[in-house]
Amino acid sequence: MSSAQPMTPEKYASISPSEFFFKNREIAGFQNPTRALYQTVREFVENAFDATDTHLILPTIRISIQELRDPMIEAEGGREETGKYMVTVEDNGIGIPPHVIPEAFGRVFFSSKYVIRQTRGMYGLGAKMAILYGQTTVGQPVVVYSSTKNSKYVYMRKILIDIKKNQPQILEAAQWKKKGKWHGTRVSISLEGDWRRAKSRILEYIFRTAVISPYAEIIFEDPEGNIHYIPRKTKKMPKPPTETKPHPQGVDIEQLKMLAKATKADTLRTFLMREFQVIGGKTADEFLSRLEKRGIDPRKNPKKLTTEEFEVIYREMKRFKFRAPSAAHLSPIGEELIKIGLKSMYEPEFVSAITRKPSAYAGHAFIVEAGIAYGGKIPSSPQPILLRYANKIPLLYDEGADVSRKVVDSINWKLYKIEFPAPLVVLVHIASTKIPYKGVGKESISDVPEIESEIRNAVQDLARRLRVYLGRKHREYEVRRRITSIAKYLPEIAMSLAILAKPPTKWSPPSDGEEMVFLEKLVNSISKHLGVDKEELMEMIRKVKME
Amino acid sequence: MSSAQPMTPEKYASISPSEFFFKNREIAGFQNPTRALYQTVREFVENAFDATDTHLILPTIRISIQELRDPMIEAEGGREETGKYMVTVEDNGIGIPPHVIPEAFGRVFFSSKYVIRQTRGMYGLGAKMAILYGQTTVGQPVVVYSSTKNSKYVYMRKILIDIKKNQPQILEAAQWKKKGKWHGTRVSISLEGDWRRAKSRILEYIFRTAVISPYAEIIFEDPEGNIHYIPRKTKKMPKPPTETKPHPQGVDIEQLKMLAKATKADTLRTFLMREFQVIGGKTADEFLSRLEKRGIDPRKNPKKLTTEEFEVIYREMKRFKFRAPSAAHLSPIGEELIKIGLKSMYEPEFVSAITRKPSAYAGHAFIVEAGIAYGGKIPSSPQPILLRYANKIPLLYDEGADVSRKVVDSINWKLYKIEFPAPLVVLVHIASTKIPYKGVGKESISDVPEIESEIRNAVQDLARRLRVYLGRKHREYEVRRRITSIAKYLPEIAMSLAILAKPPTKWSPPSDGEEMVFLEKLVNSISKHLGVDKEELMEMIRKVKME
Repeated sequence: MSSAQPMTPEKYASISPSEFFFKNREIAGFQNPTRALYQTVREFVENAFDATDTHLILPTIRISIQELRDPMIEAEGGREETGKYMVTVEDNGIGIPPHVIPEAFGRVFFSSKYVIRQTRGMYGLGAKMAILYGQTTVGQPVVVYSSTKNSKYVYMRKILIDIKKNQPQILEAAQWKKKGKWHGTRVSISLEGDWRRAKSRILEYIFRTAVISPYAEIIFEDPEGNIHYIPRKTKKMPKPPTETKPHPQGVDIEQLKMLAKATKADTLRTFLMREFQVIGGKTADEFLSRLEKRGIDPRKNPKKLTTEEFEVIYREMKRFKFRAPSAAHLSPIGEELIKIGLKSMYEPEFVSAITRKPSAYAGHAFIVEAGIAYGGKIPSSPQPILLRYANKIPLLYDEGADVSRKVVDSINWKLYKIEFPAPLVVLVHIASTKIPYKGVGKESISDVPEIESEIRNAVQDLARRLRVYLGRKHREYEVRRRITSIAKYLPEIAMSLAILAKPPTKWSPPSDGEEMVFLEKLVNSISKHLGVDKEELMEMIRKVKME
Repeated sequence: MSSAQPMTPEKYASISPSEFFFKNREIAGFQNPTRALYQTVREFVENAFDATDTHLILPTIRISIQELRDPMIEAEGGREETGKYMVTVEDNGIGIPPHVIPEAFGRVFFSSKYVIRQTRGMYGLGAKMAILYGQTTVGQPVVVYSSTKNSKYVYMRKILIDIKKNQPQILEAAQWKKKGKWHGTRVSISLEGDWRRAKSRILEYIFRTAVISPYAEIIFEDPEGNIHYIPRKTKKMPKPPTETKPHPQGVDIEQLKMLAKATKADTLRTFLMREFQVIGGKTADEFLSRLEKRGIDPRKNPKKLTTEEFEVIYREMKRFKFRAPSAAHLSPIGEELIKIGLKSMYEPEFVSAITRKPSAYAGHAFIVEAGIAYGGKIPSSPQPILLRYANKIPLLYDEGADVSRKVVDSINWKLYKIEFPAPLVVLVHIASTKIPYKGVGKESISDVPEIESEIRNAVQDLARRLRVYLGRKHREYEVRRRITSIAKYLPEIAMSLAILAKPPTKWSPPSDGEEMVFLEKLVNSISKHLGVDKEELMEMIRKVKME
């Protein structure tokens, strides 16, 4: 018997979800104080929007970042930056019921985002990451005030996350009667940050958010004491997204098992019709007859399906031609709001927008929208300026890894009469119940072929419209140029004709206005040829004369 | 009292870690069958390396991908691709003890990677993601065979992950006496995949892995029945990484609390010296005197520190000048192995490599290494071909978002005599206990300023070496060209001199060899000026004459 031990035995350990994300906070966009400050603002603002426009409330969102003073540093006499900030975001949304507040802010993997609905938040992770980051760098709890619409109370909670247990720890709780009608949520955390470096990104983020939500009012007080006020520009809001059922091609074996376990249906037929979208009676029957060939009884109780049967159903679902997933539950921005946004941002000479028809990938419906703007206040750049959005949130980082950048770069802009450097902005928005982000930091989108192709079609369509505009502009410019030079010489020619029309013996300078007959004749025949109105041409001639 | 309910109450839900990652599998690189097949191979191969070279075992790694046949499809008479594969990876590593197998493969957030050590795996997540993907697309359990070095048994387990509970579910267990001395691990899973699309990436992945592990033997059997055999090229292995203690500037308030809770030290002084790197007696005393000024007693038991005191210690740790973290526990590849790798891959005319001195970011030590290769079999490309590695694993996707691409693109290659298109390869390797990946899919690295600057220095250093080479090559070419043309005319000149040296009356064609005296004189004086050997120049003249 050998008594030797393995050289270097491995140490195995189990960690909690809080611990995992806290150890690996960079994957959620919290890799340094600059990004952490940016990401915190972003996560709270996105939650604020999800609590308002998603519920048809016109959003009013207040953001404040204040630098915290440090008595230790001040005692040493310095006024160096403390690098500690308090971020507060307040919304006028639906509020969070008091019994939910602790877990919603104090437990990773507890969230309202785990349903099939188009929301800005996707992972139910952002707020907790910000709280963890604050807790581990400044050590203070998150402070939450909230009141739901019909509640008579405002509730306050101070919460730390117990990282080892992944549980909220309530440090302080209070409640009081509402005096007014306020409802909504106000969240404050203290964290290490770097305002100087984060400033431009945060301002850009707020600006771009405003571009696609012109129906929101945003007030931002920065640490330098400046108030950035973005007024509401319209009361028109996009139709809010609604929750939906899964598409049969968007589920896998495990989800099938979970759905079968939870359903109230007691036959396969009712199970299919009840728990999935796009399956009506006719589709169910067609699909069930395929299952029957595989030996699965359509009347079988879904709770009694075997693992093998689930596998067969899954396979057949992948192969069956179902209708594409419904997009009725999605909430695009709309062409009108996109154009309003781009106009207010860049005052371009040309703007256009398109909302494509719904499409689908892997059983998830999605809609691509795009906007294009040219000229005006857009700076001339060596490539198109790209504004990326997903479920109405702007994406600022990791543009190089994003599918939209890939598409925009692959387009041959010369075909559309654009020679770079040019003043060109391209906006791309993707709305879906499932945005295929590359990471939980929500910064770039994977190149799913279906999405890539929709983006390409949208941008090419807009590029064609721009080409038409630029073509017309070029032609108009050419015509204008020719008309102007003709307008300049017409009076001379008319004068000569007036003289030449008389017999040579009577050739003499014409009396005042005598040439006008000829000028009018000339204008009559030439204006048709130039494709310009007679009156207009006469007006131009008058102008040229005056000069 | 109002009886109205909030318009649309939110549905809150808690999910398990398995459920979270399984719902969001694209963030771990499992967004479609192509990536899933690639990512599965990758995760298992990386675990295989971590189980071998990290423990000073020369790796022999067998990979097999087999297409699974589908009786359903075959019954219909087709021989269409099933899109289902079995992936098996076997190593000769240290093996996994039987009592650990179920959790190591069946529970998300259970792993041997949660220590401070340079490992290929970082998140302890990859194998579980592959298993979850297989389980949800084909429905079969993972099959694990393993034996540790000194065990007399081989253990087999078939495991499914209970996603709702995040627990392993053992479907089958067996063990038998070892006949030989085999130790290691063999893992098989069945999953949906797309070999045709994944093929080039998988082959590239294996190839690039071989480049920086010339000490490994790799056997890969692909679904088409081809065997790719990569022999071991050297028995030299890099010094393995070792586990280390945290650096005081790499911990946050929560980690401080955890360390204080777990320590056996009963004073702050012993706590600091025992639980952290780079703190000896002298540093501890200096640091403690700063704490004393803040009212913290150096003899205080760390278990009795208050939250406020932890915050003060954390702040002071950030501000104190500690020695940089030790890199003794890191395992770079080394210049020699990098050069061997690049030579075997590209047979370039020039190759060079550099291992930079250790550096640190946020309390984590790291080492940047780089290689450069020029010419040979490298295809001429419009930009440098970039080979990215982190902790010895190749990174293939998301190059556009990677800090190395950013650095390589920002270099003005013209300064180094490179005009693109050019046959240039740049290799970058980052070794660290904490690679700042942008996502758990481990494909791109964040632009941490300290790392960016090290990469820049490494690549610029190699670029300078290349410039010297290209400069010399260019000069040599120039010299050769001039010498050749001189060599061509020297005999003529010598002949003329031979004639002119006599008085004009005796001018006549010189007798055979008479000009040689002059030629030698000319060669003597000119060769010095050209920087070339006399004999060599004479040799060239002879050659030119013959032509």
